[in-house]
Formats: sequence, structure tokens, C-alpha cells
Amino acid sequence: MNFTLNVLGTASALPIINRFPSAQVLDVRGRLFLIDCGEGTQIRIRAAGLSYLKIEAIFISHIHGDHIFGLFGLLSTMAMLGRSGKLDIYAPRSFAPVLKFFLSYYGEGLNYPIEHHALEMKAPQLLFEDKLIRVSAFPLRHKIDCYGFLFREQQPQLNVKKMEIAARGLSLEEIATAKRGEDIIRGDRVIPNSELTYLPYEPRSYAYCSDTAPFPELSTWVKGVDLLYHEATYTRDMEDKAAERFHSTAAQAALCAKEAGAGQLLLGHYSSKYRDLSVLLEEAKEIFPATCLGKDLDVIDIPLKKLL
Amino acid sequence: MNFTLNVLGTASALPIINRFPSAQVLDVRGRLFLIDCGEGTQIRIRAAGLSYLKIEAIFISHIHGDHIFGLFGLLSTMAMLGRSGKLDIYAPRSFAPVLKFFLSYYGEGLNYPIEHHALEMKAPQLLFEDKLIRVSAFPLRHKIDCYGFLFREQQPQLNVKKMEIAARGLSLEEIATAKRGEDIIRGDRVIPNSELTYLPYEPRSYAYCSDTAPFPELSTWVKGVDLLYHEATYTRDMEDKAAERFHSTAAQAALCAKEAGAGQLLLGHYSSKYRDLSVLLEEAKEIFPATCLGKDLDVIDIPLKKLL
Repeated sequence: MNFTLNVLGTASALPIINRFPSAQVLDVRGRLFLIDCGEGTQIRIRAAGLSYLKIEAIFISHIHGDHIFGLFGLLSTMAMLGRSGKLDIYAPRSFAPVLKFFLSYYGEGLNYPIEHHALEMKAPQLLFEDKLIRVSAFPLRHKIDCYGFLFREQQPQLNVKKMEIAARGLSLEEIATAKRGEDIIRGDRVIPNSELTYLPYEPRSYAYCSDTAPFPELSTWVKGVDLLYHEATYTRDMEDKAAERFHSTAAQAALCAKEAGAGQLLLGHYSSKYRDLSVLLEEAKEIFPATCLGKDLDVIDIPLKKLL
Repeated sequence: MNFTLNVLGTASALPIINRFPSAQVLDVRGRLFLIDCGEGTQIRIRAAGLSYLKIEAIFISHIHGDHIFGLFGLLSTMAMLGRSGKLDIYAPRSFAPVLKFFLSYYGEGLNYPIEHHALEMKAPQLLFEDKLIRVSAFPLRHKIDCYGFLFREQQPQLNVKKMEIAARGLSLEEIATAKRGEDIIRGDRVIPNSELTYLPYEPRSYAYCSDTAPFPELSTWVKGVDLLYHEATYTRDMEDKAAERFHSTAAQAALCAKEAGAGQLLLGHYSSKYRDLSVLLEEAKEIFPATCLGKDLDVIDIPLKKLL
């Protein structure tokens, strides 16, 4: 029942020894979702002890090199390891010629299909959902077409309170009705569902926002998320440079987390000029105390919040 | 006066945690020559403490991903760090569309020219030479067009023996003549140059052979080289698989070194199936004792052999 984020790279454009470029793997109960794929991602995946073959889908925020130059190697490695299942890649429309190049020159031994779901939107959009999860994308504000991603567990099925089953003598049929969220009707009496059931746990959520300049809608689009990853390329004193390059400062990331009412803020995408990251952390914590610094190979678990 | 090989990656197609794909930097007195550029090379260059901006030329053996997927990131990084000098890339003709793709989608901020010298040959060919060095390429036997590289220091200028200057009372003009390698003529008497001069040191050499199946001409093309890098993807018991994939075993690498009369053999490009590399080393040493295992971030210095 885990919901775990693996941070694989926290560098921005210039990687340094212990900071690879952007990549993360969200592990939702053993299903792996790769978000961005900077150079060296396949090596980081191995170092993190994750299985290449369990990667179900890849989400690419934008086609800048530090977010996708690890993709060719990873796709080749998946082929060498015998992947056969379809790989879904959610990426901006601009990714199409990049994939086309790869498939033309390196696609020969590829024994699995790749489907590129081209992203193009002005407001949040559902990408897919299944029993477990619901994934949507939303536009970010960067130099080129760029998208963030929101992963939300689906609402779990309602549990029926054991006490109520006994006290009201619920039949198997009535229990099934209650689990579906419906009221129970006994003749002309209605027992409201809310008296009988409870959510066993609260669905967890994660949002990925990189790369972006701040903009007001963002915090509403990631409202109430448990864990918010927001890029923090610069410190506050570099705000002009950040704006010019469509990036954010740690303070701006923190403000977004605060406005969104996020549970926790995770920083990353640091400029290589910051060897000591504590300045970024302190700046963000002043505004949003529940901030942590992402470091390569960090594992952040969002525990299940049981409701009864 | 150093002549130093920096091993940056020793994996074959599948990288593992401590083995990045193929890349090496030959440092000839501070001038850096990058040979192959597998994924993560820019991170390894930084880890090795080498300067991106001192890389004068790049030599690409062939366009398989494990030899070039680090190139896009490195070329972008060079641009971000402000490179302005021309970058020469010696690579097979098949590299042209790869470079074209890169320049079309990622070439915007590139403020330095790149010249692709297209390799196509059936026998060794000089690529360039200057005062310091002479670099040639030779064909290897791989699935696709693939070339090896030979780096040789130029012959140093002759020194005139101090004893002879004194004993024969050589004039400044005669010393200059002797340094040029010419005999000295005094009337009808000839003093042979060989009696007056000596080479201050022996020019050093390095050959890079990856990827290749063994073939008889190879050892003649790298004859007498001080350090021979030869791929050793498999052990002897995998000879059939090696042949099928146009790779070599450690024994075949050793045989090439022996026939070439190399000073030292360096192995690399190991299949990911070998976690313990000692089997490869032992196999090679039986045939060619002066063998060493290349490991990521190894630094191999070829010391100056002074001749007097």
C-alpha cells in the first residue's frame, strides 16, 4: 500500500557530481511512474534498486535536455532487458520529432510499442485513471511548452462500521448497498449512508512542478496535495534572473505550497552555483515550514492516513 | 609533459551502478581528447576533475547508444559554460544525422562551431597532426561502421650531447644543424649526426579499440603501442556469442596485445553479467601478463621514458 517518491536527480541544466539532472519515480503500490528523464536516469534507477521493467508510463514535462537526455539510453535498456509491454509516454507535442529521431536510428531492436500521448492544454486535463490512480497534467509557465503532473490515489471503497452491522443487524445485501455509498431503505425508514460507513484511508496525492515561473493559477491546480514538488532553481536575490529564465526561487516555491495548502513541499532543480543548499531550504521554510530539500536518491514515503 | 588516460566508463550496453558506458579522456600535456561519450560522460568528466573547456576534439568510434548518448548533454554543457572555440568531432559518416538532429533541436544556444570530420576508410588513415601529436584512425570489425584511434606523440627534437659539443668544439651553427638531424660537414670530413645527438625521450602512444571482433590486421595497425585499450566484453567460454555480436573475449584482446607487442593492455567494455571482473583479467594475463582491468575513474599515466 505504499505511495513513495524516489528522487533520482536534483540538478538543473548543469549536473554536478552528486546531482544528476531531473528525474523521479513515483511508486504507487509497486507500479512505477517515471517523471522526467535527465541524463543518467537509468543509472540512478539501478542505484535506487527500482526495476526498469515495472515502469508503466513516463511523464515528460518538457523537452529541454536536462529533462530528457536520459530517455534514449533508458528506452534502449528496456529493449535489451526484454520489455514487451506497451510504454506510454505523456509528453508535450514537441516531443514527437525527438521520439521519431530515436525510433529511426535506435528503434531497430525495440520489441515493445511506445505510445506518445501528446500534451497540449491551457488548463488541467485528466490523462488517465484506473482503479488505483488518477493522473492529470496542467500547463506550467516556462520558455517552451511545459507541463506539471498530479497523481492522486482513487477514493478507496467505503468500509461499513462493524458496530453498526451488529447494532442494526445489517443483512449481506444491505452491507453491499452501504459499501456502494448508498443509503439503506427499510420500508419507509432511511438509514443515511454516513451513519454506517467510513473511508478506510484518505487518498494520497503528489504534484510535480518543474520547470516554471510562478503564476497564480498553479496553487489552485495543486490544492491540498500531500506532497508538492516545486522547482527552486534560485534564491530570492536572483529573482530577476529566475523570471528572465522562467524559473522560480525557493521563496516562490514556498509561497505556492502555502497557497495550495500542501502537506509538504519538496525542493529541487537547483542551480549548480549552490553547493550548500541550506540557503534555499531556509528561505523556503520561512514561508512554508514543512519544506524539505530533495537530494539525489532520497526516498520520500507518504504514509497511509487511516481514518478509523 | 604528462600523457595520461582517464577511464570514465567501462560498461558495455547495459550500465550498472559503478560502471558507466564507454568514455575516456586522453590528456596529452593538458590538451584533452575525449574518446567516445556514453551516457553520463559529462558527470564523469566532472568527477575526474577534468575541464570541459579544455576538450579540444572528440573521437567517436561508432554511433551505438552506449558510445554516444552522453554527447548531447556534454555539447549543451559546453555551450552553457561559454565555449567559443571550434570543436572537432571525428566520427563515422553515420554520425551526420545524429548531429543534425541535435543541432536542429538543441543547437539554439550553441555559440561555438562544431566540425564533423566524417570517417570512412578501409585501412589506417591520418586524421590530423601538429607539433605535439599525430592522431590516426583505423577500421574495426563491428556490426556497424566502427573505428579505432591511435594517438602518438611526435618525435621530440634531437638533443646534442654536451660531451660532444665540448670535445669537438661545435659552433652554434653546427649545434643547430645537428638538432635538425643533419650530419655536420667540415671541409671533406663528415661527422655523422648519430654520433652527436640523442632523442631526449621516446614518443608515447595510445590505441583505442572498441567495439570489435578480432581480425588479423588489427595487431599490425597498433604495433608497438605503449598502451593498448581493447574491449573485452566476454570471457573465452562466450566466444560464440562474442563473434555473433562482433565483440571480443578477454583472451582475444590479450592475443592482439601480444601480437602487437604492446607495452600494456587495458581492458574494458565489460558485459554487465560480470560483477567480479577477475575472471576477465586472469584469462587475459595468461596470454599477455602486462594486462590491467580498466575501472571507472582510473587514471593511467604513461611516464616519459628518458633516453639518456
